[in-house]
Amino acid sequence: MAMKVTIIGAGPGGYVAALRAASLGAEVTVVEKESAGGTCLNWGCIPSKIMKNSADLMEKMAHSETFGLSLEGAVSVDMEKLMERKRSVISAQQKGIEALFKKAGVTYLLGTARITGKGNLSVAGENGELTDVIWDNLIIATGTVPMALSDFPFDGKRVISSNEVLSLTEVPESIAIVGGGVIGCEFAFILNALGSQVTLIEGMSRVLPIDSVEEECSKILTREMKKKKIKVLTNRTVTAVDTTETGARVTIGPSPFAENLKPKEKEETTEEVSMVAFCVGRSPNSSGIGLENTDVTVTARGWIPVNDRMQTSDPSIYAIGDITGPERIMLAHVASAEGIVAAENIMGDSREMDYHAIPNGIFTMPEVACTGLTEKQAHARGMDVRTDTVLFRTIGKAQVLGEIAGQASIVSETDSGRVVGVHITGPHATDLIAEGTLAVNKGLTVTDLAETIHAHPTLAEVMMEAAMKGSGHALHG
Amino acid sequence: MAMKVTIIGAGPGGYVAALRAASLGAEVTVVEKESAGGTCLNWGCIPSKIMKNSADLMEKMAHSETFGLSLEGAVSVDMEKLMERKRSVISAQQKGIEALFKKAGVTYLLGTARITGKGNLSVAGENGELTDVIWDNLIIATGTVPMALSDFPFDGKRVISSNEVLSLTEVPESIAIVGGGVIGCEFAFILNALGSQVTLIEGMSRVLPIDSVEEECSKILTREMKKKKIKVLTNRTVTAVDTTETGARVTIGPSPFAENLKPKEKEETTEEVSMVAFCVGRSPNSSGIGLENTDVTVTARGWIPVNDRMQTSDPSIYAIGDITGPERIMLAHVASAEGIVAAENIMGDSREMDYHAIPNGIFTMPEVACTGLTEKQAHARGMDVRTDTVLFRTIGKAQVLGEIAGQASIVSETDSGRVVGVHITGPHATDLIAEGTLAVNKGLTVTDLAETIHAHPTLAEVMMEAAMKGSGHALHG
Repeated sequence: MAMKVTIIGAGPGGYVAALRAASLGAEVTVVEKESAGGTCLNWGCIPSKIMKNSADLMEKMAHSETFGLSLEGAVSVDMEKLMERKRSVISAQQKGIEALFKKAGVTYLLGTARITGKGNLSVAGENGELTDVIWDNLIIATGTVPMALSDFPFDGKRVISSNEVLSLTEVPESIAIVGGGVIGCEFAFILNALGSQVTLIEGMSRVLPIDSVEEECSKILTREMKKKKIKVLTNRTVTAVDTTETGARVTIGPSPFAENLKPKEKEETTEEVSMVAFCVGRSPNSSGIGLENTDVTVTARGWIPVNDRMQTSDPSIYAIGDITGPERIMLAHVASAEGIVAAENIMGDSREMDYHAIPNGIFTMPEVACTGLTEKQAHARGMDVRTDTVLFRTIGKAQVLGEIAGQASIVSETDSGRVVGVHITGPHATDLIAEGTLAVNKGLTVTDLAETIHAHPTLAEVMMEAAMKGSGHALHG
Repeated sequence: MAMKVTIIGAGPGGYVAALRAASLGAEVTVVEKESAGGTCLNWGCIPSKIMKNSADLMEKMAHSETFGLSLEGAVSVDMEKLMERKRSVISAQQKGIEALFKKAGVTYLLGTARITGKGNLSVAGENGELTDVIWDNLIIATGTVPMALSDFPFDGKRVISSNEVLSLTEVPESIAIVGGGVIGCEFAFILNALGSQVTLIEGMSRVLPIDSVEEECSKILTREMKKKKIKVLTNRTVTAVDTTETGARVTIGPSPFAENLKPKEKEETTEEVSMVAFCVGRSPNSSGIGLENTDVTVTARGWIPVNDRMQTSDPSIYAIGDITGPERIMLAHVASAEGIVAAENIMGDSREMDYHAIPNGIFTMPEVACTGLTEKQAHARGMDVRTDTVLFRTIGKAQVLGEIAGQASIVSETDSGRVVGVHITGPHATDLIAEGTLAVNKGLTVTDLAETIHAHPTLAEVMMEAAMKGSGHALHG
């Protein structure tokens, strides 16, 4: 008899796990509470990139004269139309996932899953009707929702989460974005390009305060933000939000995380804005699904720990994707890879998830992308490494595009030349990181990259030039 | 005493050879007739991409409504401004090369070189003054010029070469482009986007009739040309051009290369156009440089054959880049790689130029890029291969960009899974090919590519999906 695999959540982890399990012969059921595609498709990667795409074009149009083009009138964004496009792209992708389920023979149930006991699960449909599902193995892929701060509850109008930013029907005149992580930084650039006056408030000493992001990338981004008149406040935190008839008054003080504050950073200031968006983290969707009826251990904050086989403390229950928490990497493509590992393990293979070559794409303007280790991380592991950096302004294609801000760095072992990390800030960084990820994943060296011919004139030449430097043969310096 | 290396031509082959030889301790002189950067920087890759960049933006602006943007007035191109930008980018790059020469201690002479005997060379400067140069080894990197057909001499006004296309001060109302190779196809898309009515005439049965370009890429391009109202005539040739007061009348007949012509293809037709551009090939710059005073063998057409060490039949004289002829690959980055090989051999190393993983980037709309072998080429070598193809329309990021035409194919050995060729037609193809080139160059397999996590949502996912298919685990089909 076929193995019965049930997956809660049809995000990029869940749906990929479902397809892989089905292809290996499992009888698969996917239960989804909201819409196929999860946060990524509905409230994350895809809608934000649709907004970014229009923001990119709007910004290019604003500078079209530089490229020899003359524009007669003004350019403006029609948010209703933009949202219509968003819905249409998302809907097509949702249908695509559903079609793949159908083709693979996966049973797809819309409703709220609740584990009722070992091997049992109940799905409450839209009208409360219950469907029982029997499982041999379960994969929990329920993901997260935007984290709400108890002092600043979302009202969906003046105090909003990333979900509402992705559903704006008009561009706010001004917005304070609280949280300078990936989501906050992406929104800052997008809304700025669409015409908002943006203030970005981050409690740490730099934007993108993420271990895997080189400090230099944060510096470049901050410089670009300032060029674009985005107000960047680091080491600062929001202490009060008072909504008004037309917006909100935000009180900003020193961050509790900040050290060695300058006198000015200790002051309390206020900003009058149309909206405040809190992008301060994500909360796990782990309550209400009946985990108390299993042997699954859940952390105090609600995350579900797993081993590298993606197994929870209950051997027949796996967890993948964002629900496994920030200690693993919360990215759509990581969830998909984890989904494949979980599915293959359930179906008898013995796979371990490998996190040493995960690419991270951050869709700021310019983009940031990285994979593997920073120099700091490598040093912390006792490795002897060097970092070789090439500026995009030395690359012909970057000059052609007029997108010269940023750089590519390769971190490599001093002795062997093995590439252990790649960090790119600049045009098409999120596409260029693929080559670096392959190098890190396969243990290739800077000489391997330097001796691989790169097409001219392309942005990928930046990788070759950095690798040439790393192998002692800098070309353009 | 330092080895005296003289290089004739400061194109991408010559200047890279100069820098590498200098870094290895040679006393280097570069003689350049026109401007640093050669055809690539002055009359090829860079100026065409500057035009393409503006054409891309113009096309996006024309469709800005799709992306939720409203444009009040019309968009037009100001060719004077575009040419000004072209000159400014080129000039900065030229200065960059000259600065690198200075830093590396390379002597840079502007003038016409003439080899006067073994170890001797004379450079005639702008005002006819002569400078003698002594050399131990010579590298010839003189490149090519646009090929003129004797029946249709260029007049620079109505009958032009690619050089004049890159210097247009206004957009022609209509243009016939003769030659559907790389240059002709790139111009067809650029001029179409800038507002010309374009007719593209190609003597072979497909556009981009190049062995290393898959037939499917040509088909996709032809489809996109037709969508954009570019008139594509294959199996056709120009039999007469009559210039008129306002343009030219082009007579078009069946191609002498064509087989199995349909009755309609045998007919003679005429087109009235503002201009005719001949992009039918390139002619070598090998005469007048004193090769008769050397033991260098030159082909009847003027190309200089070399071995894989880049040595001509005269062991102290090397040749690199386009002057080595179409049997080697005529691309800027190949010239640079050949320059490094030549320089290192001169300085005592024993290097052979390896052509098995050359990327080719074609800046059409969409872009085309390929590396390694086509399925047909692999079969001709007796290899047992499979081709796995994924359409860009299945990739989320392509949907986000609204650029869904095209596909990526991976050609891999059936038994081993080793990637032997990659062929991409679609958005950012010329950047995406870098990952494929690395895979082909290092002998990686489809499983290596499939198991390397690719960032979502990026266009590079198309490579992972094709590789998954190739390793028997298609995800999105």
